Amino acid sequence: MRLTTFTDFSLRMLIHIALKPQGRATIAEVAQAYGISENHLMKVAHLLGQAGYVTTLRGRGGGLVLARPATDITVGEVVRRIEPDLALVPCFAKGDCVILPACRLKHALHAAREAFLAVLDATTLADIAVPDAELRGLLGIAA
Amino acid sequence: MRLTTFTDFSLRMLIHIALKPQGRATIAEVAQAYGISENHLMKVAHLLGQAGYVTTLRGRGGGLVLARPATDITVGEVVRRIEPDLALVPCFAKGDCVILPACRLKHALHAAREAFLAVLDATTLADIAVPDAELRGLLGIAA
Repeated sequence: MRLTTFTDFSLRMLIHIALKPQGRATIAEVAQAYGISENHLMKVAHLLGQAGYVTTLRGRGGGLVLARPATDITVGEVVRRIEPDLALVPCFAKGDCVILPACRLKHALHAAREAFLAVLDATTLADIAVPDAELRGLLGIAA
Repeated sequence: MRLTTFTDFSLRMLIHIALKPQGRATIAEVAQAYGISENHLMKVAHLLGQAGYVTTLRGRGGGLVLARPATDITVGEVVRRIEPDLALVPCFAKGDCVILPACRLKHALHAAREAFLAVLDATTLADIAVPDAELRGLLGIAA
């Protein structure tokens, strides 16, 4: 049971932008901070833009900024939007299991997934991107 | 975010055995009931045996039986034992993210995973393998 690298990188990129004193970061900066591929992060930024989480500012002093306040973006919402597949078992996606009409396991798994997402719905980007010196230091962000 | 086919088949096999009036099923029977590969189910049965959930009875009238009462086996326990990877994000497994020491996201994800498993810990095999006519009918099990 894993989230995709895409979801992981999306959350990390949002954290990085939120931690910047001016609230603006470049893809190159995020890539360097986490030691991950700039190419991969370009796709992440594109998707985050489409989903309405970031806006790209062009020109000098440009970069990515949050399109909404960090206090308004929940981790649960990002995971629901970015994670391509929250179908824990094949029957959630295709319904090809013979016992589906009477299956009680699917109810338990549904309830478990909702409990998972409920915890993340109660967590905002502001909660996980608290601008403390340690977190900023690890990302090489000057206060 | 998916459970493996292995975990899915494990739960389905346990349900089938629990639903049998004599509490005993063959691999061929389970494979036929769900329309899944017998070869794959042999591996599932082997792992369920190693994990202490089923016992194989040899000879005529043999087959797989539960090694513990269905009321004592929780779905959460099976998922924890059988699912090879409950590390939602790479850092849970390898710890290679630069912000790990100060990361608040990992706490939120840990809490979410625990909430997910807590729901499944509260669900027993007996809860999901209630021997009603519909469920047995779908699996072709005579009452």
